[in-house]
Amino acid sequence: MKDSRRDFLKKGMLAGAGALMIPELAKAVVQENMAVNAPKISLKKDSVILLQGDSITDAGRDYSNNNANSMQMLGNGYSLFIASQLLTKEASKQLKIYNRGISGNKVYQLRDRWEMECLAFMPDVLSILIGVNDYWHTLGGGYKGTAEVYENDYRNLLRYTKEKLPNIQFVICEPFALKGGSAIEDEKWFPKFDEYRSIAKKLAAEFNAVFVPFQAGFDAAIKQAPTRYWAYDGVHPDLPGRQLMANMWLEACGLK
Amino acid sequence: MKDSRRDFLKKGMLAGAGALMIPELAKAVVQENMAVNAPKISLKKDSVILLQGDSITDAGRDYSNNNANSMQMLGNGYSLFIASQLLTKEASKQLKIYNRGISGNKVYQLRDRWEMECLAFMPDVLSILIGVNDYWHTLGGGYKGTAEVYENDYRNLLRYTKEKLPNIQFVICEPFALKGGSAIEDEKWFPKFDEYRSIAKKLAAEFNAVFVPFQAGFDAAIKQAPTRYWAYDGVHPDLPGRQLMANMWLEACGLK
Repeated sequence: MKDSRRDFLKKGMLAGAGALMIPELAKAVVQENMAVNAPKISLKKDSVILLQGDSITDAGRDYSNNNANSMQMLGNGYSLFIASQLLTKEASKQLKIYNRGISGNKVYQLRDRWEMECLAFMPDVLSILIGVNDYWHTLGGGYKGTAEVYENDYRNLLRYTKEKLPNIQFVICEPFALKGGSAIEDEKWFPKFDEYRSIAKKLAAEFNAVFVPFQAGFDAAIKQAPTRYWAYDGVHPDLPGRQLMANMWLEACGLK
Repeated sequence: MKDSRRDFLKKGMLAGAGALMIPELAKAVVQENMAVNAPKISLKKDSVILLQGDSITDAGRDYSNNNANSMQMLGNGYSLFIASQLLTKEASKQLKIYNRGISGNKVYQLRDRWEMECLAFMPDVLSILIGVNDYWHTLGGGYKGTAEVYENDYRNLLRYTKEKLPNIQFVICEPFALKGGSAIEDEKWFPKFDEYRSIAKKLAAEFNAVFVPFQAGFDAAIKQAPTRYWAYDGVHPDLPGRQLMANMWLEACGLK
């Protein structure tokens, strides 16, 4: 997958990525990574959108705040920038957007809190970004889960969710890691971590989910400004990286 | 001015504002309110953008944080959403964006701190949103300044700034107040407050500044969702209002 993406970056419409403006780039990356029959997200009046994941989603949110659309509850990450754009653009729909990401989470930890922190919201749209810790915490963190465990747990979580909420629309976000980030030792992360990305993409296809190709987006963005500009540690995006993620998410969902 | 805007809202391209999506609406409002020879903002590598104003600009920023582009320094207002979009879109330019709004400020209070909190930054682009307190604080707040004081102080501030930084690009933001907001008593605010808006627009033309017509933007947005959705108190925008302001600002500057 990494190789085919590299080939594409050399040969495809992104060949001139350094010259493309970022908005066009997000669009080009999303289109290139989109499955042929990829769905789009459809929003109705009062639709509930729930964003789930780890620290990248959490982004300093106030766990005690339960108010839909509030900045304290949304935190300072990509969820905030998705929400601000959707709430403005789709004002007449009176959407309800929630963030329930928790720092450090791996996929099995989502399952542990799924009843209260996903199903209870009865989301019309559920976005999940999970996987970086499933790999990272095996690097000296004492966690023993493999890519296979990640895949099985993630599939079971999606299956269970679909069973309970048959009309749910899934958005599966690609976990990512940026070479050159202070927390990323290339030889420890690659190509092993790429498996987790492939699994997320495979599950998106299995569950007819929107897939958001964050890794390809960041790989292309790095041609315009260095890794430290987008995400100093290579894992947690800084301000421009957060907005880039929101733009890609909206683009992939057909909500841009 | 209010009347001509109303006529326009009835007759112009905004006649169907309720049906327009917000992004198109921001564009339409900006175009309709733009002077014939209105400038656009031009950004170079390492350009410095400074946002100045009152609480709407301040928006909870950390006064002790001086790092360009940091979320703590930018606060949670429209400045954050302008910065996130510009830093992403114009990544290769390595812009430096600062917020120095202070809650409660009137135009003369900007002058009091101008050397250190404006000129010292040597901004390439200076955006100012000031005026709501210049009126509001006369309503029982004990402040005695008139619209004339506002106009003279504002003109002197701009003249002085232009003298010190001849190449500066000004963005003058229209002060606004939303009917139906909890802090707005219509009969106390209108039409008196409209004078302040007219003055800001006049000064924008005098100084060849970009003018951002926030009032017209909110007036149109309110056709899609009520005042409380955009700015509960009618003065301080909530999340959707903050993003709407950023969108209008970028549109007016030609940076969308």
